[in-house]
Amino acid sequence: MKTLTQRAGLATLAFARPPVVAAVASVAGRHEGAGPLGAAFDRVLTDDLQGEKSWERCEARMLEDAVDLAVQRLGWTAQDLDLLLAGDLLNQIISANFAARSLAVPFLGVYSACASYCQALGIGAALISGGYFSQVGAATVSHHLTAERQLRYPVELGVQRTPTQQWTVTAAGAAVLAQAGKGPRLTHATFGKVVDMGLKDPNDMGAAMAPAARATILRHLDDTGRTFADYDLIVTGDLARVGLNLLTELLAEAGHDPTGRLEDCGVRIYSPEQDVHSGGSGAGCASAVFAAHYYPQLQAGHIRRLLLVATGALHSPTSYQQGETIPTVAHAVAFEAEGT
Amino acid sequence: MKTLTQRAGLATLAFARPPVVAAVASVAGRHEGAGPLGAAFDRVLTDDLQGEKSWERCEARMLEDAVDLAVQRLGWTAQDLDLLLAGDLLNQIISANFAARSLAVPFLGVYSACASYCQALGIGAALISGGYFSQVGAATVSHHLTAERQLRYPVELGVQRTPTQQWTVTAAGAAVLAQAGKGPRLTHATFGKVVDMGLKDPNDMGAAMAPAARATILRHLDDTGRTFADYDLIVTGDLARVGLNLLTELLAEAGHDPTGRLEDCGVRIYSPEQDVHSGGSGAGCASAVFAAHYYPQLQAGHIRRLLLVATGALHSPTSYQQGETIPTVAHAVAFEAEGT
Repeated sequence: MKTLTQRAGLATLAFARPPVVAAVASVAGRHEGAGPLGAAFDRVLTDDLQGEKSWERCEARMLEDAVDLAVQRLGWTAQDLDLLLAGDLLNQIISANFAARSLAVPFLGVYSACASYCQALGIGAALISGGYFSQVGAATVSHHLTAERQLRYPVELGVQRTPTQQWTVTAAGAAVLAQAGKGPRLTHATFGKVVDMGLKDPNDMGAAMAPAARATILRHLDDTGRTFADYDLIVTGDLARVGLNLLTELLAEAGHDPTGRLEDCGVRIYSPEQDVHSGGSGAGCASAVFAAHYYPQLQAGHIRRLLLVATGALHSPTSYQQGETIPTVAHAVAFEAEGT
Repeated sequence: MKTLTQRAGLATLAFARPPVVAAVASVAGRHEGAGPLGAAFDRVLTDDLQGEKSWERCEARMLEDAVDLAVQRLGWTAQDLDLLLAGDLLNQIISANFAARSLAVPFLGVYSACASYCQALGIGAALISGGYFSQVGAATVSHHLTAERQLRYPVELGVQRTPTQQWTVTAAGAAVLAQAGKGPRLTHATFGKVVDMGLKDPNDMGAAMAPAARATILRHLDDTGRTFADYDLIVTGDLARVGLNLLTELLAEAGHDPTGRLEDCGVRIYSPEQDVHSGGSGAGCASAVFAAHYYPQLQAGHIRRLLLVATGALHSPTSYQQGETIPTVAHAVAFEAEGT
């Protein structure tokens, strides 16, 4: 029965009708607004609640606002979307669920931790390229204070942070993918396998996730027959400094020279003076930094081809407490400037 | 800018090359094994741990086993899958993540609570119909004891259950979708909007979810131009008795006569003597009952056309404690027997 169907054998989807990334938007917290990308975010919060009664409500609102800002840029409302794919880090992804309730659009919740943004973009692009939908939203969010109290410790405890630790960003990013129009195109998606090198330290997730990024990047290059030189930039989601250094080594070992072509959103979002230790992380890191920093460069043609590789740590406090190691994953999507 | 693209205007995907549901498999707990479908499950656990050190590990193992059993039926291994789409109810969907680690196949985590199975099937079918992949796994799981201690109370507390309450099933179900071959086909998918009627009682989720099922069923019928008479059965995921009765009323109000054509997996999985109050629920309910009970009837041609409508409650303990109402969603997929 093995030959029931012919296996594609590829993990990479090459879109026959690559969707346009018609618009993006970002909403960032105060700490992120004080960083090097501060002026590039569409909206920066003035406090951690933004008038909501809880941080969790604020997080859902940020996601909702990011989607609204993106569709408004096209003169649309959220209800003009055929589908929203969204995710976050909270238990039962309540930020995405509550934002989708307000946005009133067909909704699929995605979860691959901080890799969720590329998962959402990849599925959305496949649904548009397949002719099923005309315009699809993809969005993710994280909030430092909800993540800390759920995944680590309540911030009020003042637990000391380790040097390898990352700072969960307060940020949301959204993109609108469309069947036609002007703008950069999403040409490929590579969905990763779960990689677990046996690491157990939830305060060093960059190191845990770097091998997943390596695996997905190599798989993508292999599937597409491309090399590093075919990309102006390969941008990881939130490996931060420790993870990015490790990935650079792992890629060099595999015979690739990523010098000058490898960056990380978690490094990009804060300045070294901001006391975030290794750098940023969080489901909203890749989406907000892509919207604020990389998308404009693709739009202007300063970057011709970019591979965004969002990375996620798939453990939970329960699995950690039960002595499990940290499974990780990376999903990648490739963008091309118009006319490339 | 409104006219950037032409909106499809439909929430329903009609697959140009509908994938075959080439194989399914189910793994059930002891309580489920003692119910009316006991003999139909592929495997029934002999205890709540199945040799694992925690209920959470057991849950991940059940999901893994369900996928393995399904692919073995085709003479394959899990690594013959191009992609696995899977989800569960645990925080950060760790059961799916850990199962995907063992199965070593590209993996996308889905979350729409107990609607996750239809979400996974719908995305998987779109990816196959679009020509991206040849064979995709879709699977979900839930475990009574992990769900109780995470979402409600530790069972050791012996908290009294309300009459409207549902019993989270210990069950996993998996399906293999393939580009070609023999078997029932998955012809359509309808992704729902989030529906929230303002209900707040997490012990009455059937009532909360029934309006979401109504919305998705009506949307599906409207999009496809079909009526209830076009389906031998419309099967909801886990409304249980309270929710199914409410849905029947809601559909009658909307002018539909679902008599004899509407069933619910959460009603089907237990006998009234099993003291489960309203009936079963859980992410594994729809997937396991579909595999054990409905798929064989589609395969034999006794059912020609079936709409599976999995329903999910999208709240979390945190959102409940913060006074939020319960957002819900329903996703539907349509199956046709071979030669229909």
